[in-house]
Amino acid sequence: MPQLRKDPVTKRWVIILHEQAKKPSDFHTVHPKKQKIKCPFCAGNEALTTPEVMSYRAPETLPNQAGWEVRVIPNKYPALEIEGELDRTGIGVYDMMNGVGAHEVIIESPNHEDGFHNYSVEQIARIIRTYTDRYRDLRRDRRFRYILIFKNHGSAAGASLDHPHSQLIATPIIPKRAMEEVEGAKRYYYYKERCVFCDIIRQELSSGERIVHENEQFVAFAPFASRFPFETWIAPKEHRDSFGDIEGNEIEALASIMHSTLRKLIKTLDDPPFNYIIHTSPCDEHCTEYFHWHIEIMPRLTKVAGFEWGSGFYINPVVPEQAARFLVENKE
Amino acid sequence: MPQLRKDPVTKRWVIILHEQAKKPSDFHTVHPKKQKIKCPFCAGNEALTTPEVMSYRAPETLPNQAGWEVRVIPNKYPALEIEGELDRTGIGVYDMMNGVGAHEVIIESPNHEDGFHNYSVEQIARIIRTYTDRYRDLRRDRRFRYILIFKNHGSAAGASLDHPHSQLIATPIIPKRAMEEVEGAKRYYYYKERCVFCDIIRQELSSGERIVHENEQFVAFAPFASRFPFETWIAPKEHRDSFGDIEGNEIEALASIMHSTLRKLIKTLDDPPFNYIIHTSPCDEHCTEYFHWHIEIMPRLTKVAGFEWGSGFYINPVVPEQAARFLVENKE
Repeated sequence: MPQLRKDPVTKRWVIILHEQAKKPSDFHTVHPKKQKIKCPFCAGNEALTTPEVMSYRAPETLPNQAGWEVRVIPNKYPALEIEGELDRTGIGVYDMMNGVGAHEVIIESPNHEDGFHNYSVEQIARIIRTYTDRYRDLRRDRRFRYILIFKNHGSAAGASLDHPHSQLIATPIIPKRAMEEVEGAKRYYYYKERCVFCDIIRQELSSGERIVHENEQFVAFAPFASRFPFETWIAPKEHRDSFGDIEGNEIEALASIMHSTLRKLIKTLDDPPFNYIIHTSPCDEHCTEYFHWHIEIMPRLTKVAGFEWGSGFYINPVVPEQAARFLVENKE
Repeated sequence: MPQLRKDPVTKRWVIILHEQAKKPSDFHTVHPKKQKIKCPFCAGNEALTTPEVMSYRAPETLPNQAGWEVRVIPNKYPALEIEGELDRTGIGVYDMMNGVGAHEVIIESPNHEDGFHNYSVEQIARIIRTYTDRYRDLRRDRRFRYILIFKNHGSAAGASLDHPHSQLIATPIIPKRAMEEVEGAKRYYYYKERCVFCDIIRQELSSGERIVHENEQFVAFAPFASRFPFETWIAPKEHRDSFGDIEGNEIEALASIMHSTLRKLIKTLDDPPFNYIIHTSPCDEHCTEYFHWHIEIMPRLTKVAGFEWGSGFYINPVVPEQAARFLVENKE
C-alpha cells in the first residue's frame, strides 16, 4: 500500500509508492515509449484494462465492450488504493498514514487521435458529466476529503499515454495548494464579506483586458498574476463553491467555453503540452460563501527551474494582457 | 522594468517580464541551443559578459580578464533590476510593485567542462565563499527582504547555458515558499520551544536510516517526506538560522559534504539534471531561534504533472530510506 508522509515544517503531504519503488538504473536513460503495443484505451481493447467503473455508451452495448463514448476505469498503477483504513501514525516528529484513496482514469474518447483539437461541444459535455458523476459518487465516502480532477496532455505535461484521458484522485487529506486557496479565500471573506473570486471576476469583466472568452454563465481569462505563459482560468460568473453541484444547462455552457478556449490555446500555441486542473471546495468543509470553483489551464511552454521550486515564485516572460489579446485575435 | 504581481487569493508573487515579452511563435518549436557560439563564461571571453561584480583571481591579474577561479557578473537578462524604487500600487483587488532586485550569475569555474563531478573541495569552498560574500553585501540593501541562491544543472533542470554556474536573486518580497517554511518553523517553536529542524536532525542522526553522509559539522540526508526521487538535504548540525553567517572552518566542512554528496548523486544517477537551493532566513526577520538554514538538492528525474501542480502534493516512486541506502552503498 502506498504511504502518505507529511513534511513537519510546511505540512506538505507526499505519496511514497512502496510497491512500485524504482532503482537508480530506472532513471539512467530516457526510454521514449514506443506505442507499438496495442493501446489499452482504444475501443475494442477493453479487455486490456481494469474493469470499468462506469461509461456513457450506446444502448444495448455491454460494459467492457466497444460502444462507449466516455469510459472510466481504476488506474492500473494507482497512487492511492481504495481498500483499507487510514491508520494514522507518527514516529517522533514525523506523521504518516496509509495511502487510501481513489485513482481513476477517464478515457475521453474511443478514438486514439481525438482530443480538444477536434472534440464536439457534445463530447466535452459528456466528459464533464462523467467528471460530475464520479465526483458525486466519491464524495459520499467519508474517508475522502478532496477530489482532484485533472488532465495531462503531452509527455512534457506528464502524460504517459497518448490516448486522450483525464484523471481523478480522491485524497484522505486536503492537498496543500487547495488548502491555501481555501484559507486565502476565507481570509478575504472575513475582511470584506465578499467572495474574492467574485470580486476578481467582476473586475476582469469590467476592465476586459484579460478576457479570453465569455458566455452567459462562464468567463475565461488570463489571471493577473499568471505563473505561466498563456495560463487561462475558467470560472462560473455566479457564485458556486463546488464543481460537484454543476447541473443542467451549466454543463453545456461549460462545455462550450472549454471548447472555444482550448481550441484557441491549441491553435495559437501549435498544440502545446498542457495541464488543466479543477479547483473545487473540499468535501467536508462548508465553503459555501467564500470559495468559488474554477478550472486552471496551464500550457507547459517553459521549464520550471530551481528558482521557482525554491521560492514558489515564478518568472513569466509573457504579459497576461498580451496573452489574452493573442488568444482573442486568433479567431477560429 | 519587470513587474511584480501578487495573486489575491494565495499571496503568491509572480515576476512579469514586460520588456523581454515573448510571442506565441517563440514557443512553437524547441530550438536546441547549439553552443557553437563562443561561451561567454569561459576564461578569455570576459569581454562578452557584463562587467564583473567580484572575482576570486590570481594576484596581479586584472578584473574582467583571465586569471580568475570564481567570477560574479550581473545577469544579462535580469528577472529583477537593481536600480529604482519599489513603487507599490494596487488596482482594485490586485497588488503590484516594480521588479526591483538583484540578479547575479556566479561562474563557478573558468573551465567549460568542470562541474561537481570533478571540483576539488577547495574549488567548492571558493564557490561557497563567493556566495557568502555576495549574500553579506546584498543583505545590507534595505530594499531586499530575501536572498535566494540556487543552481540549475542540465537543461531539464532549467539551465540555459552549459558552462557551470549558479545564480543569486535578491527579492523585495519574501518568496511564498520561504515564508511558509519560516511560518511552519515558528509555529513549531511556539508549541515546543524547540527548532523543528534541530529535532529533525537529531531524529535522523539517531535512526540513521536516511543519512547519506555526515561530518563533524554537517549532515546530508534523504528527507522523510521527499517530494522527488533521491531528494537530499544538507544542514548544519548546530543551530544556525542564516547561511550568511557561515564562517571559518564551517565553509570547508560544507564544501567537503557537498563534494561527497553531489558526487554520490552524480555517480549513482549517471549525471542527472539537478537543482539545489539554499534555504535561509529572510534578511529582516529575526528568526534566530526557530529557523535553521539548509540546502535542498533535487535531482530532476521525473516530470511534474498536473496532479502535483494542482495539489502541491507529490508522488514519489522512490522510498527515501532506499534512496539513502543506494547513495551510501555507491561509494566513491
